[in-house]
Order: sequence, then structure tokens, then C-alpha cells
Amino acid sequence: MSSSHRYTLSLSCPDRVGVVAAVSGFLAQNQGWITEANHHADASAMRFFMRQEILADSLSFGIEALRDKFAPIATEFDMDWQISDSARKKRVVILVSKQEHCLYDLLARWQSGDLDIEIPCVISNHETFRGFVEWHGIPFHLVPVTPENKPQAYAKVEELFREAQGDVMVLARYMQILSPELCANHPGRIINIHHSFLPSFVGAKPYHQAHEKGVKLIGATCHYVTSDLDQGPIIEQDVIRVDHSDAPEDLVRYGKDIEKAVLARGLRYHLEDRVLVHGNKTVVFR
Amino acid sequence: MSSSHRYTLSLSCPDRVGVVAAVSGFLAQNQGWITEANHHADASAMRFFMRQEILADSLSFGIEALRDKFAPIATEFDMDWQISDSARKKRVVILVSKQEHCLYDLLARWQSGDLDIEIPCVISNHETFRGFVEWHGIPFHLVPVTPENKPQAYAKVEELFREAQGDVMVLARYMQILSPELCANHPGRIINIHHSFLPSFVGAKPYHQAHEKGVKLIGATCHYVTSDLDQGPIIEQDVIRVDHSDAPEDLVRYGKDIEKAVLARGLRYHLEDRVLVHGNKTVVFR
Amino acid sequence: MSSSHRYTLSLSCPDRVGVVAAVSGFLAQNQGWITEANHHADASAMRFFMRQEILADSLSFGIEALRDKFAPIATEFDMDWQISDSARKKRVVILVSKQEHCLYDLLARWQSGDLDIEIPCVISNHETFRGFVEWHGIPFHLVPVTPENKPQAYAKVEELFREAQGDVMVLARYMQILSPELCANHPGRIINIHHSFLPSFVGAKPYHQAHEKGVKLIGATCHYVTSDLDQGPIIEQDVIRVDHSDAPEDLVRYGKDIEKAVLARGLRYHLEDRVLVHGNKTVVFR
Amino acid sequence: MSSSHRYTLSLSCPDRVGVVAAVSGFLAQNQGWITEANHHADASAMRFFMRQEILADSLSFGIEALRDKFAPIATEFDMDWQISDSARKKRVVILVSKQEHCLYDLLARWQSGDLDIEIPCVISNHETFRGFVEWHGIPFHLVPVTPENKPQAYAKVEELFREAQGDVMVLARYMQILSPELCANHPGRIINIHHSFLPSFVGAKPYHQAHEKGVKLIGATCHYVTSDLDQGPIIEQDVIRVDHSDAPEDLVRYGKDIEKAVLARGLRYHLEDRVLVHGNKTVVFR
Repeated sequence: MSSSHRYTLSLSCPDRVGVVAAVSGFLAQNQGWITEANHHADASAMRFFMRQEILADSLSFGIEALRDKFAPIATEFDMDWQISDSARKKRVVILVSKQEHCLYDLLARWQSGDLDIEIPCVISNHETFRGFVEWHGIPFHLVPVTPENKPQAYAKVEELFREAQGDVMVLARYMQILSPELCANHPGRIINIHHSFLPSFVGAKPYHQAHEKGVKLIGATCHYVTSDLDQGPIIEQDVIRVDHSDAPEDLVRYGKDIEKAVLARGLRYHLEDRVLVHGNKTVVFR
Repeated sequence: MSSSHRYTLSLSCPDRVGVVAAVSGFLAQNQGWITEANHHADASAMRFFMRQEILADSLSFGIEALRDKFAPIATEFDMDWQISDSARKKRVVILVSKQEHCLYDLLARWQSGDLDIEIPCVISNHETFRGFVEWHGIPFHLVPVTPENKPQAYAKVEELFREAQGDVMVLARYMQILSPELCANHPGRIINIHHSFLPSFVGAKPYHQAHEKGVKLIGATCHYVTSDLDQGPIIEQDVIRVDHSDAPEDLVRYGKDIEKAVLARGLRYHLEDRVLVHGNKTVVFR
Repeated sequence: MSSSHRYTLSLSCPDRVGVVAAVSGFLAQNQGWITEANHHADASAMRFFMRQEILADSLSFGIEALRDKFAPIATEFDMDWQISDSARKKRVVILVSKQEHCLYDLLARWQSGDLDIEIPCVISNHETFRGFVEWHGIPFHLVPVTPENKPQAYAKVEELFREAQGDVMVLARYMQILSPELCANHPGRIINIHHSFLPSFVGAKPYHQAHEKGVKLIGATCHYVTSDLDQGPIIEQDVIRVDHSDAPEDLVRYGKDIEKAVLARGLRYHLEDRVLVHGNKTVVFR
Repeated sequence: MSSSHRYTLSLSCPDRVGVVAAVSGFLAQNQGWITEANHHADASAMRFFMRQEILADSLSFGIEALRDKFAPIATEFDMDWQISDSARKKRVVILVSKQEHCLYDLLARWQSGDLDIEIPCVISNHETFRGFVEWHGIPFHLVPVTPENKPQAYAKVEELFREAQGDVMVLARYMQILSPELCANHPGRIINIHHSFLPSFVGAKPYHQAHEKGVKLIGATCHYVTSDLDQGPIIEQDVIRVDHSDAPEDLVRYGKDIEKAVLARGLRYHLEDRVLVHGNKTVVFR
């Protein structure tokens, strides 16, 4: 029995007695071997969240049958749900600009298999990393963005994402504000890394804002992109200590370490179906 | 329906299909409202760990009936299990010596109700904190420990613990090594805070050892006491940054902040039945 | 030669060649033994900051003579400066309301001598901690604050502070907004602990704001009080990780641990003359 | 006046009155503009440590003249000292095996200029990263290491290091134990990243040791290599939280993030002459 081939069921529904019993009863009845299980009851929203990892080989049928058999329970409990298959690698389209740190970090994790994903392409508004990306055997698309061509540029980005059959779009310090349409078309599928500990220092040059304010820690925030700038549901955050001797350029440099670490963690949570969005907040089953 | 009156079921058993289904089916059948649930499957030990918080008022019967009704399931799955009642405050006996920080910290949490416990007494080998403890209305027992009287002293400590009907004994920087008998008689019920990041710097003067070694972080470890010095199952740990400018006395001072924080967290996990011991390791459902 | 009796010289001045040479030359000429020295040149403000600890017994004269002899150098370089004497304990007046954690923490540090200060009195708008404070032999003053009596109440607080010959006023979760006059009269001498990672969540109920926003870390900020609410120069900050399972009440409870730790560190920096204010920012020589 | 061209003077000497005065007097006399200064007096070792950054253009002479003029002071105070020039990039030779994370991380920092160094070559015992390294325009040398050829292999490594005129050798998860001769020949010039929080878990498979022990944090240690395995002076350390749900493979994966961050910080401190070794400990002027 392969221990690495797993199905992941994640769901949320109105909270009531019997949800866990129904789901675990269903799985037990089918000999489903649960390797990881997480639950969260949001008492104020009266909503229940659940994630189950099941050994694929413990079931006598495949994922389509699993979905079919589970559907009546989902309907009964009014669930938002999905079942994903670890054997199908998620397709991650990366958008970059001219900063290297998140791109190198993601490609290192992909190269070693630590991130078990496909990267169908990298999209950038600059040529900077074409050679680096192509050396890795990954297609690179230049989509210049100017104040004038934004609608066309983002239409092109969206077209490339669709052609690539992307599951998730990662803004790896892309430094451009996506169009509201693009954001609205892919809720919960566009992940950004913002270079501040939100909600502090929204917008441009957050490290300079942080320096001006004299804060003693700086941070980074990985969040889903919505049409509301830097306001989407937060997936992960972290901070690093700074002091008076650090110039804004030092903060930028230190910040890179936090940005890439926070983005990598947030992306992993998303890829492993550990993030359930409710309103403007997330449940993250780590 | 009171949201604060809860029963907590914690258990471990050999891992197999159907454990969760059996437990959650049982609870659902009895209208048990689960407010928090945690699971862990240890793949190498093939052992399953679970903790469920249930609203007491959601059941139509009391804790004794709950235990009776659950017992057959526990037997079927060969469970180590217990059900505790949030309405019954745990009784915490604190042992101190001459250091103030953990004692003040625990009494502050108790005074405000953040730690919802009874403190039937404080035991010490010095008179230092008699006044402080008694001012809080808590009985204080002096049990001097000398190289000669150790067996009698620890017999006295054990007698006081039993008389106090203590659930757990907390060594809040007690600075004495308990007798093997005392340790053996109360497995998983004596909690110590060791002033190093174990397994580094076992034994005496760990901060001086850390200074000598030139480490850049120092730590503290909250663990269950066994007869093997500083080797019991680890519940919680944390660290704090130091540097070359810190003398051993500075490390001692910084260390206090970590010690009291780590002890308070570890103790809380224990009191809330979040810690399940397996071999020399713990599962901590935070 | 006592290693614990020290003079601390702290200063800032316009940056130019020769400041360090002048100060260290002066000290060397008088056989001053420097045990700790810190410098910071703020390149954008063109301002220089310095702190020197000198063994008192290494000089052949006392602190008054030291000040007299140093004054010409201070004048030459246009310095803001002060020299303090470790033998004179600073007088810390603590203001509290009904929350226990910072008060217990500060008194524990004072009781053990870790904080080498005098506490001439504690002032509160509630009777809650009278017994606890007085048990420690510290005078306790009740100064009720109502919407109507604010001017008189803060005049009373100021009078008590002056009578106590306080060096610094610590708002240990005082939960009241001081009058602009009181703030303005004691710049750099009133220290507050704010229960958020400023500049996020200014004002009331920051933990509830944090919960609403879904942040993954919460924090606390120790800062000098100015008449601009929660906007004074930041001395120290720290954060702690939270997640979706934490209710606002949990954040409040976790936050206490960060608040007391951050306040204790910030206060220590202030007491040891490690904090130099420039504009709305601080230089903190840790 | 270029603000980026700097000389860095770092030194240690027996502690006595007048060291700072002599050094700063010398610099002031020559119009040397100090941009950063650090001091440390080790009271138990009676040794003084100092680091000064000076704007090169503030002096009317060059680095050789600076060294000549400073030499008499160094002699007078019996200093270990050096003066380095920011205009001369340090030459860093990287040794890798088959793990990608530290290599990608270092090359990303080098590519962007965040690490202002030359990388004359990368040496490996495997071909794994030849293509990646050469794509960056950096020479790659394969030096296979077998139980039989160790003396020759390390002689070859040393020869390549000398030919490359390397200033520092970085073991970026090289996974091989260098020969005692190689270590002895380059004290304070070989930097390793060990994948545990030393002194815990010396030797092989530290993450598996950590898992076995059930620690709640894992760490990494950047240290100078000596002939005593994993015992050289510690430059930098950090930790990351883990829990019972993490298998050894998870610890390995989390550990990579800490390893690369700690190595990058430790290397930077070394490159900027912020690390002064004394006995088996370091002073790190951050």
C-alpha cells in the first residue's frame, strides 16, 4: 500500500451535530485509512471546517467513485467541498518582475521535489529572468505592462494562465497591481506575497514606511489576491527583528528572507488543500 | 447551553480503520456537540491519538454515564483513555525554592482566572515565599531538604501532595532532584521546567554551560519528570537570542522570561488534556 | 574596584569627525575604564548617538566633577547629554487598572532585584490591587477616573508623581488615555505598553481588531507616551503566533505574555539609559 | 564622497584604558569619518574587541598608508588586527554535494548583488549542480570523495582553493568531513552549516536524532570548521518550531529553510569582518 498516494477531502458547512460522524462513518465503511485529520468549529460563524487525508490504496475504488459516493453526504450537510488527488501535480504559474529571491527559492524547491508541482510557465514584465527560467526547461513569457496597455496585458496574462491550465497563480514579487477582472475571475487561486506585516504599511514602499515609523520588527504577508489592494484573506505571516542601525535598504534586504519563506509556506498550505477561506479570513490546517 | 462546561475525551490506541467513525458516531448518536477535535496517526508506531471537546449540556446525561457508555468502544479498540470535566478544577501543587519568577507568574495567572485551577498548597525547601503565598490565601509548607534527609523529605512532599489531593505537581524552579520513588509513583503528573534547550546542557548551571559554549540562543524545556534526570518526555520548549555581550548572569536573567513562559504553556497543555505521552515523547494538541 | 558601580554617559549631537576621539580621549585622560560602548551614526539625519558605561571607581573624582569636566566637550560638539549613576536607583511609578499580568511581572523583577529600582508608589483607578501592592510594602493610591473628573484626576496623578520624585511613569495596562498636558510635561518619561503590533490596530480592543482581520501573529508595543494616541516613539515590540482556532479571548490571553515581556524589556532599556529619542524614533543600544 | 567605499578596521587586544582613545584619536587626526563602530570588553578574558567602518574618501591617503600609519598603535596595544577594503570583493569558494537549497540561496544573493562577492568556483563531489553553476558563468570542479581517496581529494580541494585565491571556503551542505590538515591550514576561513542547534545532535542525521528525542524546535548552526567535528566557534544559530505530526522527512524539509538563512547570515557577518574569534567563541558585531 503506497503511503504517498493520498486523497485529500476538504470541506466546510454549517455546524451541527453529526458532521464528523457522517464523514468518518462513510470513510470507515469503505475501509478508508485516514492519515491526517483536522477539524475547526467557528463558534461565532457557526460553521464547521474539516480536512481529511486518506490513503488512496485503502479504498477499493478511485477518486471519481469516491466523489460520487460522497456527494449525497455533501448535499445532506450543505457542504462546500473538494477532493484532490496527490498523484495529480498542481500546476503553478509564477509571475515575477526583476527581483530574484522568491523565484530562485521556488525553483530550488521545485528542482529538488520538495514542492511537488508542475510549473507550466513563468510570466514576467521584464526579460531579466528569461535565461534562468528557460535553463530550468520552463517556458518564459514576456508580457510588458505599461500605464497604457494594462487591460490588454492582463488579458494576455489570463490567456497564458488558461492555456497553461494553471491551478494557481503566484505573484512572486510581481510588483504590478492586477486588474479587478483578473482578480475576480480567480478567487482563492491567486497568491501574493506582500512585503509588510499587514495590515500595517499597505501599498508602495512598505519598508520605507516601516523605517520612517521606527518599528522594531518588519514582516511579510502571504495572502489571496482580491480586487481590494493588499486586503485579501491572509494565509501566512512572519516577522524579523530590525533596529535603529538598519537603513531602508537593509530592511529591503532582510525582508527578502522573510518574503520568500512566508510565500513558500503559504503556497505549500494552499497546494496541500490546507487553506479554507471563509469571508475575508482563512482556516489554515497546518 | 453553557459554552464553557465541557467534557474532554483524550485517548490513544493501535491505529486501524474505524476509530474516528466509532468515536464520532457514538457522540453524534448522543447529540454530543464537538467544539474542538484533534487527531494524530503515528505512522511508525502505528498508534492513533485523539482529543475531543464536547459541550457538556449537549448530552442528556452526565460524565459518569458518558464514561459507562463509552467504555465498550474503548475496550473494542484497546484504548488508553480518559474523560475529564471542565467543571472540576484541577489541583496543582507548586514546589519552589528561592527563585521568584515562575511562582509570581503562576499566581498571577491563577489570581486572574486565566489558569482555572485550584492551588491547594505550595511546598518549598526555603521560607522565602511563605508570606507571599500565604497572602494569596494558599497554604505554604516548608520541607527542608538536606543531603541527609532526602528520603524523609520526599516522603513528606509525597504525603502533602496526597493530602492535597493534587492532580499535578509543578516544579517551578524547585532546584532539587526528586527521589526516583516519587518520580516513579506519579508518571505524567510531575512537570518540571529545565533552564536549557534540552538535550543541550543537562544538569547543573546550564546557562554557564551555554555561555562557555558560545551559543547564540538559549532556551528552556518543560517536561514530565522521570527518574532519569532531565530526560523525561518534552512538552514545550522555546528559545531567546543572546550574544557575546551577555555574561552568564545576563543569560540567567533572560532565561527567566523563557522559563516562566514555557512552563505556563506546558502546564496549560497538560491541564487541558492536550498532552498524550507515548514512550518518551509527547503528542501535544495545541 | 567595584565592577557594578558605573556611570553611564549617553548623548547625541550633530555628526562630525572627532566626536568619539574627544569623548574617549577625555575618558582615557582621566583613567576612565569603559565597560560598554555603543555608537550610532544616522546618515540621513546627520546625527551621532553614543552611550558609554564607565567604572565609577576608575575615575579619581565623583559624578559631579565628571559632569563639570565633561561639560566643555558637550558644549563644543553641541551635545544633548546626560550622565547617570548606577548607585542611584531610578524611581518608577506604576499605573495600573484591573489587569494583573504586567504588575505581577514588574513586582517579581523588583522583588528579586533583577530590576534595580525604587517603586515609590503604585497608582490605580481601581482598588483591585491595593492589598497586593501594599503587601509588598509599596504605597498604593486610588485615583478614580470618570468622564467628568479627568482634568482633576490627571492633575492628582501628576501631583503624586512629583511627590514621589518619580523618574519614569509606567502605564502597566492602565487602560486610560492621559491628558495632553500630562504627556507634554514629561516627554520621554512616560512609558506605555500597547496591546498590538503598532502601527496596526491603534486604539481600543486591538485583539478584537486582529481577530477580525485574521492576522497570523499578534504583538505588543512598548513606547513613550505623547499626546498623540499610540503614536509615540517605539522602544520595543514583539509578536506571538496565533491561528484560526483562537477566539478573541485567546488572543487577549496570549497577548498578556507578550505585553509583559515587551514592557519589561522596554523599561529596562529606558532605565539603563539605552534609549535615545530623535524625532519620533528611538535609538536603542541593547 | 562615496558613501559605499569603506575601510573596515577590526581588532582585539588586551583590555586597558586608552584603546578607544588611541584608535579614535588616530582616525580623527586623519579626518577619518566613522560610519559604524562597535566595541566589546570581555571582562573575564580581559580582552577588548573593536570594529570600525571608515569612509575611504574621508582619508587623504589609501589603504596601504592607513595600515602603515596604524601599525605603531597596533604594536603599542598588542593588537590582533586587520583593515579590509570594501572595494575589494572577497572570493568565496562554495563546496556542495547533492542538496540544492544553500547553493540556490547563495547564488540568488550573489546574482542580485546582495552578497557583494566573487565566486571563483564551486567544488562538488557530485555532478548534480554542474549545469546550474556553469549557467551562472561560474567554474565547477568535480572532486569525487571516496573512503580510499580522501587525502588526495582534500589535497585537490585545497589546491583549487589556493588557485582560486579564495578568501573563504563555504561548506553549503557539503556532507563530507574535511581532513584535519585542511581545517588546520585555514583557521577562521572555512564556514560550515550544521543541521542542528549545536551542541545538540552532533554528527550524522541530526534531524532523525531530533525526531527520536521529541524536541519541539529544530535548528541550524553556522560555525567555523576546526578539526574537531561540529565543535568550531559558533557564528550564528536559529530554530524553527515543529511538533508531533512532523516526520523526520518533514524536519529535513523545514530544516532547509533555517539552514540557508543561518548560513547566509553567518557568511555575511564573516564577509563584513563582523566576526572576531577568541578561543572557541566568537564576538559578532551585528
